[in-house]
Amino acid sequence: MKTRTINLKNRPTGKPGLEDFDFTSSEVPELKEGELLLKTEYVSVDPYLRGRMSDAPSYIEPFEVGKPIVSGMIAEVIESKDPAFSKGDHVSGMLEWKETQVAKANGLMKVDPDKAPLSAYLGILGMTGLTAYLGLTEIGKPKEGETLVVSGAAGAVGSVVGQIGKILGLRVVGIAGTDEKVEMLKSEFGFDAGINYNTTQNMTQAIANACPDGVDVYFDNVGGEISEAVLFNINKFSRTVNCGAISVYNNTELPKSISVQPFLVKKSSLMQGFVIFDFVEKHPAGVKQLTQWLNEDKLTYTETIREGFDNIPQAFLDLFEGKNKGKMVVKL
Amino acid sequence: MKTRTINLKNRPTGKPGLEDFDFTSSEVPELKEGELLLKTEYVSVDPYLRGRMSDAPSYIEPFEVGKPIVSGMIAEVIESKDPAFSKGDHVSGMLEWKETQVAKANGLMKVDPDKAPLSAYLGILGMTGLTAYLGLTEIGKPKEGETLVVSGAAGAVGSVVGQIGKILGLRVVGIAGTDEKVEMLKSEFGFDAGINYNTTQNMTQAIANACPDGVDVYFDNVGGEISEAVLFNINKFSRTVNCGAISVYNNTELPKSISVQPFLVKKSSLMQGFVIFDFVEKHPAGVKQLTQWLNEDKLTYTETIREGFDNIPQAFLDLFEGKNKGKMVVKL
Repeated sequence: MKTRTINLKNRPTGKPGLEDFDFTSSEVPELKEGELLLKTEYVSVDPYLRGRMSDAPSYIEPFEVGKPIVSGMIAEVIESKDPAFSKGDHVSGMLEWKETQVAKANGLMKVDPDKAPLSAYLGILGMTGLTAYLGLTEIGKPKEGETLVVSGAAGAVGSVVGQIGKILGLRVVGIAGTDEKVEMLKSEFGFDAGINYNTTQNMTQAIANACPDGVDVYFDNVGGEISEAVLFNINKFSRTVNCGAISVYNNTELPKSISVQPFLVKKSSLMQGFVIFDFVEKHPAGVKQLTQWLNEDKLTYTETIREGFDNIPQAFLDLFEGKNKGKMVVKL
Repeated sequence: MKTRTINLKNRPTGKPGLEDFDFTSSEVPELKEGELLLKTEYVSVDPYLRGRMSDAPSYIEPFEVGKPIVSGMIAEVIESKDPAFSKGDHVSGMLEWKETQVAKANGLMKVDPDKAPLSAYLGILGMTGLTAYLGLTEIGKPKEGETLVVSGAAGAVGSVVGQIGKILGLRVVGIAGTDEKVEMLKSEFGFDAGINYNTTQNMTQAIANACPDGVDVYFDNVGGEISEAVLFNINKFSRTVNCGAISVYNNTELPKSISVQPFLVKKSSLMQGFVIFDFVEKHPAGVKQLTQWLNEDKLTYTETIREGFDNIPQAFLDLFEGKNKGKMVVKL
């Protein structure tokens, strides 16, 4: 049996493009004990993958040039040589961008299509949901009545952060890049206010207006100028969750911004970066909490579902143009 | 009885100068119940006073133009109308830059010249010692075997931070501005290594060389370019204590530097500002610990003692030229 594979062709400088990906075809190897033969169903594309395309030191090792890209995926078990899995099961895990593959069963998790749509396990009940929940609660430490600002608010993580903020009793203000997204924040996700950074002249003032009591928790998905504007509005003892900096991932030079240190000193304020791998021991409890809120209809989520193996690279590239609403996945 | 007073003459833009201070003479008022008549013995000059000379929002209210400057001081009780204090007692507290003054007894603390030299209560057993101890332990959370980098290491706070780091079993690297200071870090305060930022071409590489296992805790007194160089060397889960940013206090424009957010995300790293007022409930335990280490000869401290009321403003200005070694005080 043959499969197609998407490999990293070369390390992009600056913005990646289709030319950085390479489609190859190869034979699927024989199944060994403890392995599964898998048919890909859904592929998650995520901004953090940009980091793995570079060889700069990071929290996760870089992809190798000429080797397959790896991301979170859902696949169906076609054949199993592991007693814990059967033909027809659906699994979630870090897998290679292939139509068909052989993978070790160890490290894969069975997911139940009756409890939630399969794609949800890549989003609200997967890495994005956990990133939102654990980043907000473990670092943001939100308290009822406080004000939460979320950048990249219409994104997969941001939209969940805002909803959890509302569940926990905070005033929630979201920052996004189109009027349509801002409207969605309020109508669909229950944010108290939204700001379109593309049409707002004075972001610092707009945040001040939207946050009359200042900013206690800032969940930062973007970095850059938007985060500078938030800095001018932080309260004493505020917490900034540094979840991502998509605005600068494609920069070839180190980005400059106003120095945060004087703000942190003046406000006894905290900034902390994290990745969900830092809180592995809290993942099961997190998934449980998210599933509960989902079943109670307290959480909703948006997906952008693209179709077809060939369209995976473009779906990934479109993340950097803000073309997704919520979690972007590709269905095969 | 008359006293001279040093007032804020105008709010400096950029670097303050002697012209921003004003000497006046006035009558000392009558002593009322609950008050003390005090003769100034030692005046503390501190970088943070620069912030109070501006009217930008900060953690502490600004000085008023035409009103006396206030800082930590030690004074002798000349006359007491409060039962808790007697003539001849020595007190420590926030007082006005006056030769003689009447102050409420409430808020002043008796200090014992037999337990430590009076000036120590402005430094190692006062605000600077507590800043070092509480900043390092509460935010830096140092663990034995880790590496601690201190900027402004020869300063009043930095030199104590480094010594506490050694007591707690860390590798301690100090950054200072002259070879003499760097030598002092090692010979007098027991630092493992020192770096002279004025003669070092590549600070990032110098820090890497001095910290073969990377930087776990960074106690940042200076901000600016030195802190950028440290960022390139931080470890996963590192903690930066933002204690001050003396390098930018006199800037008239908001200083720019490389964006810290991507570094924090990559390293799951924390930065947190603080002032000792955040930890008021921990001050007594802190003073007790510092006094114990001092009596066990585990801690030493350096002072730069200037003399004379007239020289207080110049002593303050000299802080920004790095002319002090350790805590700078003025003796009357």
